[in-house]
This record gives sequence, structure tokens and C-alpha cells, in this order.
Amino acid sequence: MDALELCYMSAGELSSLIRDRQVSPVEVIDAHLYRIDATEPTLNSFITLLPDHAREAARRAEAQIQAGNYRGPLHGVPVGLKDLFNTAGVRTTSGSRILDNFVPTEDCTVASRFQQAGAILLGKLNMHQFAYGPTGENFDYGHMHNPWNPELVTGGSSGGSGSAAAAGQCTITMGSDTGGSVRIPSALCGIVGLKPTYGLVSRAGLTPLSWCLDHPGPMVRTVEDAALTMNVIAGFDPNDQATTTREVPDYTAALSGSVQGLRIGVVKEYFEAPLDPEVESVVRAALAQLSEMGAIITEVSFPMFFDSQAISGTILMSEAAAYHRDLLATDGDKFTPSVRLRLEAGLFVTAADYLKAQQARARFNYEMSQLFGDVDLLAGPSEPITAPPILASEVTIGDQSVGTTGALTQYTRPYNISGTPAISVPCGFSAEGMPIGLQLAGRPFDEATVLRAAHAYEQNTEWRLKRPPI
Amino acid sequence: MDALELCYMSAGELSSLIRDRQVSPVEVIDAHLYRIDATEPTLNSFITLLPDHAREAARRAEAQIQAGNYRGPLHGVPVGLKDLFNTAGVRTTSGSRILDNFVPTEDCTVASRFQQAGAILLGKLNMHQFAYGPTGENFDYGHMHNPWNPELVTGGSSGGSGSAAAAGQCTITMGSDTGGSVRIPSALCGIVGLKPTYGLVSRAGLTPLSWCLDHPGPMVRTVEDAALTMNVIAGFDPNDQATTTREVPDYTAALSGSVQGLRIGVVKEYFEAPLDPEVESVVRAALAQLSEMGAIITEVSFPMFFDSQAISGTILMSEAAAYHRDLLATDGDKFTPSVRLRLEAGLFVTAADYLKAQQARARFNYEMSQLFGDVDLLAGPSEPITAPPILASEVTIGDQSVGTTGALTQYTRPYNISGTPAISVPCGFSAEGMPIGLQLAGRPFDEATVLRAAHAYEQNTEWRLKRPPI
Repeated sequence: MDALELCYMSAGELSSLIRDRQVSPVEVIDAHLYRIDATEPTLNSFITLLPDHAREAARRAEAQIQAGNYRGPLHGVPVGLKDLFNTAGVRTTSGSRILDNFVPTEDCTVASRFQQAGAILLGKLNMHQFAYGPTGENFDYGHMHNPWNPELVTGGSSGGSGSAAAAGQCTITMGSDTGGSVRIPSALCGIVGLKPTYGLVSRAGLTPLSWCLDHPGPMVRTVEDAALTMNVIAGFDPNDQATTTREVPDYTAALSGSVQGLRIGVVKEYFEAPLDPEVESVVRAALAQLSEMGAIITEVSFPMFFDSQAISGTILMSEAAAYHRDLLATDGDKFTPSVRLRLEAGLFVTAADYLKAQQARARFNYEMSQLFGDVDLLAGPSEPITAPPILASEVTIGDQSVGTTGALTQYTRPYNISGTPAISVPCGFSAEGMPIGLQLAGRPFDEATVLRAAHAYEQNTEWRLKRPPI
Repeated sequence: MDALELCYMSAGELSSLIRDRQVSPVEVIDAHLYRIDATEPTLNSFITLLPDHAREAARRAEAQIQAGNYRGPLHGVPVGLKDLFNTAGVRTTSGSRILDNFVPTEDCTVASRFQQAGAILLGKLNMHQFAYGPTGENFDYGHMHNPWNPELVTGGSSGGSGSAAAAGQCTITMGSDTGGSVRIPSALCGIVGLKPTYGLVSRAGLTPLSWCLDHPGPMVRTVEDAALTMNVIAGFDPNDQATTTREVPDYTAALSGSVQGLRIGVVKEYFEAPLDPEVESVVRAALAQLSEMGAIITEVSFPMFFDSQAISGTILMSEAAAYHRDLLATDGDKFTPSVRLRLEAGLFVTAADYLKAQQARARFNYEMSQLFGDVDLLAGPSEPITAPPILASEVTIGDQSVGTTGALTQYTRPYNISGTPAISVPCGFSAEGMPIGLQLAGRPFDEATVLRAAHAYEQNTEWRLKRPPI
């Protein structure tokens, strides 16, 4: 088996080869370590690479499978975790040099579930300092580079997860999404990123940015892999009291390939915000394709979309400041200037403002829930632009100059506020060859419908076959 | 039937007479209106009295019962509501002249459930301005006076509910409890006050003080009446999203009269706080009596008790300020100076401080929940003192001078933080004849055990037969 082919296989494809012993986990891990060696100087996806650990785990997996103890679709599959997922015995920096030597004694719940499923941890992935920001700044471990064009950002904060999955360094990566940090790099790097419903995937053992907006989620190359990952990581965890006790379905069972009769509401306000015309036309073409496939596309209106930034920003700044307050006091100079500025500004938000934002959030969520009386999914662009240059603090969209952070989080924040599931699925490329994402969002805990629609769409595109030039 | 006897009957006693048509609701209401006429000049329990409404409702109830449509134990029973429970067509002031002419168009859920049960609303009860404070200040509708000694406070903020139930002006009253506002006046006026589990009784249509600490609860003369009231008001309400969907039991079924084998933990820190020696000895005698009755009394330690004030105060000030911010800006001069001061100070609490208090609360609740591994109930004094003089801003306890608000909320705040059920049940009198309350607190949603213990204890005392001298 060609090593590069192994690196670009989905978990779904790899797993049948591993299960049938046509490929050994050792071979899979070696291929990925080779791929990482070749691409890492360009991408810088990893903060900590674990070649010895991974090889040893691969040998163990190989032996288990040969002994007839096959654990399921993730057995022997290489995984990378954003470096704010605690891993026992492996340093977990949260993207900050302050935690350069922090070695957790326990796995976070997600890491522990991957391990139980037989997945193999390849390493810990690069990210913005303390997950604060999607732009080209705030790195203690060096810039992250987009595999489609290394001069452009991956997006963030789960940027290393985006580049690693997109470039075949890992089969599955995990990110966390507070204002878009799973979906932004997924869209900009041309992969599938799912932000699940709040409370469906445990946050236990993850460094918070803003605990009422934080969502861990898979970043993968196929929708099926998102479903396979969710099958492993979703569900109740006694260590995260926000997790749901409801039963978790088999998400792969939802992947029927059909969107026949599915009602998809296109939020008209999404097209009134700054939006690159090229992105718009690609997204509109994707919606037209969904319509041809049998989905019922209607326009819906969600005026409170325009309050997303104010609501989410106030909450996020407040909680981030509360969480980091003690560290700011002792080690303020070790934060990057812009993260420090935002955290210190967050200390001045009043409780009344925070509480008003939470009340506005309740209204926002009520209004969004009303839309789901008429439609099954909401749709729009994941991002208003393709990946901007690494140090661009502003971007030009049409004839407007807008802040990069605001632009990149424009369409993603609404679903952190609502805590409802949203996926970014590749839907085309710009003339310059940069990926564009379609965002589909569903009802609370209705990941099944979100995945079904994204999968059906994906099966009808060629994007899933495209690989970055690296 | 002697009119005064009707006024001092419990709902349990009254209801069988009404059901068997030995007494008519008209007779009951007339007796109470007469009692109110006689005592109201001294007590000032009511902000709005509804004699015409009540007489008409009584005639309707009488006709219904004569026609064989008896609705159950509250049918024809006179009820008073603290004046922050919205009542359709009846002004609801929240204790503030700013709302002197506010007439809601809809009943709050509690009022609506009382009405469905056939209870008769006698009027709206006096309270501290916007429910802020338990002391002898902050009244727009005149001082409230303790029926056991009108020179002393009723406690608050549900003070009118306390005096009305204690003096036989109403059979059942409702209060709301954010830092103790049901249990404080219940203890100081010698009645039974239950703060149910957060989310068990709907807050829809109540003016909030601090929405994550607010609990509506019954204030009555017998534990059985608390159970009967809970049977009517408890349970899911689509208009209060914090309400539980769990099924509500028949609380009267829990009143077995036995505490045999019940494990009651006496919190030792409660006796390290300022505590009047006379109150202590009465409470200890009550605990000894529970022990004689078969309960297993042990000492438990809850060091975070001493953090109650800081946690609850920070949260309460923040939420109260957020809620009243707009009104403060337009009508600041219409608040009493001390309420205004506290609200304006609350605007300076930072979001980070609020969030830290909520985090400390989570720890507090975890530690309290651990105690319930070993015991079924926690016990201690409801109040460290008996009712202080009306304008005392400080009180002397032993050789310490302490703030009255701090003292009166000392033992009640912990269960607002935890959101768990707590009852104050009369357990004796001071040498000067002022009532003293025993507080019993249970596990979340375990009102049944709280009521069972309080009821068994009550059945073995003579306090329940005592009436205030008014």
C-alpha cells in the first residue's frame, strides 16, 4: 500500500483494511510519521509529536487485532489532539509557554475514549495561545500554515488540527470551538469540522476559554469520519456536569445519502453581512445542488444574527478573564500582547453586562429555535472569505475593510451562542485554489440530520477527492 | 363555628369542614376579613386587600361545592400572596411605589394554580422594596409588625406573609426566598416556611431579585399545610424553563409521623457563628427531642458555610443590579436609599467576580452534597436571634455586635446557594415569648423527607397550638 494513500484514507476506509488485516496499524503509523516528517517543516501543525508512543501503541494494536481483539472502526487509526486536551504523561501547553512543562496526570475524557476505542495518539496540535483568536497572531509555538498555501492562515484556534487533517498528517483530529475554532480552520483548510451540541461531548480535562461557549469537536476529511468519531466521544460523562444523559445514537446510521424532502433554511441576513462575492457564488451553487438533490431550500430571516458578536464577545471576554485572572496577575508578561489586552479588558466587563448578554442570549436562542419550526437545517457560508495572509489584521471584502477576527467568526458565533450543532463541509474552491466551506446547522442534539445532509452533499461533489498541493 | 377558630384552622382542618359542607367558604372568608380588620392596624400585613373579590370568589366556591364540584383541599381556603406575585387585574407593586399602579394582565403560574385549586385570594402582602432585605427598613408601604410583639420586625422580605399567616389573617401565604426571605419571617413569626428545591416551583410571573437564587415557597401554620400547598404549586411550568420535568409526588403521603432511623446531621459550624445562647439551647432541645423520637443525630462539618455570605452576596448584588439597572437610571430617586445604594454598588461588581462566585458556588454545592452521603437531613437554627426591634441595624449576640442583615441571613443563605429544600419549623420560644425556628434541609427534590421530619417533630410539640397575643 502506498504510504501517501494511507495518509489520505478516511478512518472509514482505513478501518476495514485494518480489521481485515490487509494493513497493520504499524504500517499506518509509520506512513503518517513519514508524512509528518515531510510536511511539518512547512506546516508546523504539532506542538508535541509522539513518534515513540505512537509506534509502541501501533504494535500493541497490531497484536490485539492479530489476537482477534478488534475494537472497532478507530482501532489503529492515527489521531491528533489540539494541545488543550489533557493527555496523561504528555505535556499539554494550551498553546502557551507558561504551560510549556505542564504534564497532566490524567487523560481528558475525549482522549480516554479514543484510547479505549484503540485510536493511536500521534501528537498534540498547534493552536492559538489559550485558544484565543482565529487570526495569524498569538502563537507561542510558531505560526500555523495552510496546506493549500503556506503563506495563508489555517484559521484557528484549532489551526494545527486543521492543517494536520487536511494534509494527511492525522486521520482524525480534535479541536475545540468557542467562537468558531473548529469550523473556521475546517473551512479554511478544506476539511469537515463538526461543532456538536453543547453537552454532547465532554469538556472534562480541556482548558476552557469560555466554559458556556466551549465545544470539543472532530475535524476530519469525510463526514463519515465525523460520525465515526462522534460514536466514540459523544455522551454522558460524570466529570462534565453539562453533558447530556440522553442516549447517543449510531451516527453512521444517519448517513443515508439522501436529502430528499429535507427543509433547509438559508438565512438571508448572512448575505447582508460582509461576504466575498466569490465565496457567495460557490455557496449559492452548493445550495442549488442540494436543491437538485431533493432538499427544499427556503429563505428565512434571523435578525438577531447581527447581535451575535456583542452577545458572544461579552460572554467570552468575561469568562476568559475570570479563568485567567490569577495567571494574568502572576505571569501577565508571558501572554502575547493581544491576548493579554483582551483578557485584561475582560476584567472590566461588569457582572450586569455579562448577565444582560446572557439574557440576550436566551432571546437569541428562542428566536433561532422558532426558525426550526419551519426548517430542519439552517445553511449559509462557514466563512465570508477564504484564508487570509498570515499577518493580516484586516481583510478587504468587496469594498469594505473589516477586522479579520470579526470576519472569521461572523458566521460561526451564532451556533456557539445557541449551543446547537453546526458543521462546515467543503463546497468548492476560489479561483486561487483556496477551499470554501458550507455551514449546515441543526436542532439541539440533532447531529444525525446535520451529518446526513453534509454527507449526502459531500457524496455528490468532487471536493472530497482533492488534496492540498503540499 | 367561632370566627377566630376558623382563622386559626389549618387548611387541612378547614378543608374537611368545607368539603363536608359544615362550613361555607363565605363564612371562612368573612371570618378572615373580620380578623384582618381587627389586626391590620397593628400588623400592616397587606399592601392590597381584596374583600370584594374574595367574597365573590367565596360565593362561587360555595356554589360549586354545593353543586358537588369540590376541587380538593384548597377549595375555599383563603390565600395571600407576597406582592411580587403577579395577579391579573390586581396591582402588583413588588413593594415599590414605582409600581404603585402596575396591574398585570396575567396571573403568575402560582396564582393561577391556586385559582385552579379553588383557593381564594384575600390580598397582596407587604414586603421589602423589591424584596431587598430582611430588616426593619426599605418599606414603601409602611413597616411590618411582628404579631408576637409589634415593636419587633417580622423579618423579610416576605414579612407580610409571615405576619398574615401567624396572626390568622390568611390560612396560606406565599413568599419568595432569595437569601432567606421565606424562612426568616417564618422563624421570627413562629410559622412553618418551606423553601423548595430550585426549579420545583415556577417563578414565572414573579419579580426577580436574583433569578438564580429566587425560590417561591409556602408560609403556613402547619407542616401538613406546606405539603398541601406544594401539591398544588409544584411541578413543571413551560413558562419557567428552570422548572423540573420530574413527576411531583403527593407530599402529604410522606407525613408518616415518624423519624425513626432518619439520619440528621447537625452542622457544627452553625454553632461557631454568632448565635444567641437562648436560641441555641432551644434548638439543641429540639434536636434532643428528634433523637428521642428515633432520629440518629450526628455532628457534621461544613467549613464552606463561612463562605455563604460572600458567594450569595456577590451573585445577588450582581443579578439585582442587572435586573434593576434601567429603572435605577430613570427612577433612582424613588428607591429607598439603602436599596439604591446596594443596587448601584452591584453595578460595580465585575463579571469575573460574579463568575468566581458561581464557581465557588459549584464547589460549595459539591461539598454540601458530600454531607448527604452520610445523613438524610442537615439541621440547625433557622435564625441566630429572635426578632430584633424594628429599626435595629445592628444586633448584639452574646458579646458581639453584628449587622442585622448578616445575622438574619446567616443560616438561610447556604440553601439558596445550593438550591436544595429547607424548612423552618417552630421549635420553641424565648423567655420574652418570641418564636424560635428549627431549620431542616434535605437533598435536591427530597421535600418529602424534609416535610416528614418537620411534621413528625411538630406533632410532638405544643408550639403548634400557641397563638400570638394579638
